[in-house]
Amino acid sequence: MRPDLRLYALVDPQHSDGRDLAALARELAAGGATLIQLRDKASSTRLMIESARAIRAALEGSGVPLVINDRVDVALAAQADGVHVGWDDMPVADARRLLGPDAIIGLSIKTEEQVRAARLELLDYVCIGGVFATASKDNPDPPIGTDGLRALSEMIRKRAPDMPAGAIAGIDERNAAAVIAAGADGIAVISALSRAPEPKRAAAILRGIVDRALAERKGA
Amino acid sequence: MRPDLRLYALVDPQHSDGRDLAALARELAAGGATLIQLRDKASSTRLMIESARAIRAALEGSGVPLVINDRVDVALAAQADGVHVGWDDMPVADARRLLGPDAIIGLSIKTEEQVRAARLELLDYVCIGGVFATASKDNPDPPIGTDGLRALSEMIRKRAPDMPAGAIAGIDERNAAAVIAAGADGIAVISALSRAPEPKRAAAILRGIVDRALAERKGA
Repeated sequence: MRPDLRLYALVDPQHSDGRDLAALARELAAGGATLIQLRDKASSTRLMIESARAIRAALEGSGVPLVINDRVDVALAAQADGVHVGWDDMPVADARRLLGPDAIIGLSIKTEEQVRAARLELLDYVCIGGVFATASKDNPDPPIGTDGLRALSEMIRKRAPDMPAGAIAGIDERNAAAVIAAGADGIAVISALSRAPEPKRAAAILRGIVDRALAERKGA
Repeated sequence: MRPDLRLYALVDPQHSDGRDLAALARELAAGGATLIQLRDKASSTRLMIESARAIRAALEGSGVPLVINDRVDVALAAQADGVHVGWDDMPVADARRLLGPDAIIGLSIKTEEQVRAARLELLDYVCIGGVFATASKDNPDPPIGTDGLRALSEMIRKRAPDMPAGAIAGIDERNAAAVIAAGADGIAVISALSRAPEPKRAAAILRGIVDRALAERKGA
């Protein structure tokens, strides 16, 4: 399924100031998030499944899908809509085999080598980054910036013209428009939403910036 | 599938002195291990799947099944024979649904409450413990000893007379016979095998002790 990446909100128990993740996801969806990811690198499998089920229930009726970072087992147990994988996670071909043709499967991309190696024909979206420096993830590599984002998204579009490509890392109200101008179809955001004083309002503001920037790019 | 628990060998990259896990598993099976578990609480999903596949290939033709600790996704991707779960892992009912009726599913048991709560009708075996103190796992609870093992295994047999019940934690050549005498159908072992100078020989010795103790118990 081709997901709408305009405002891709990642919720992570380690980056949400102790907020209830299901309530947070519901607020973000109400504010205009188009896709939610549960990312949890620390909790037990049992707790991840419980969180995923609670978020899924909270999103019921919103039309906003839920994907799980890395964990195909959690996605299957909680009947989430799919997974987001990186290059240390399950290979995309295995994830597709286990999740079936209708699941959403997205892949992180940060280098040209990864664009060449990616099984784009098995993917529903890619997420390019880290674009800027971020406190939400240990990124040993330097950020690629908007120039790197532009180069990688053009390279992906040559191989797969219709592949939705989001941008991730350090994106907020100040730089979101530049990221869209550089070729991203949307922004993936953690702290700027999950740690915002009013997450719903923060989502609405970011979604507005993305929508305007996408309209400008099409008009340009 | 009802597994043979007589010598249940756990291989864990953090408790095997840097040995190649596939070669180690092959040696242990050659020495008399009847079931192998891959336990890995630290590696990436990608690496776990690679390890599981390598161990599975190394066990090919041995008749010794491979189960994966906690990770149903890894078991599915690597086509392992099943999983071992604890109470912080995926609920047994979900694991059974995802893995199907033929997979081996085992559960850790350390309290009477857990015996009462366990979905024994969905399980292929249980593993009781920690029986003794061990360096291979952080066990905040005190060890249950052979008396605790005897009480829990009798309680399990009342509910499920044919359920194979292994014993785990701190089991070695000195106490293995006492563990079998207390009612276990076999022993689950990490360090005494994976850190032995000659793992195959250590497996053969432990297997011999278990076989003799089982014969004595039947004769008694």
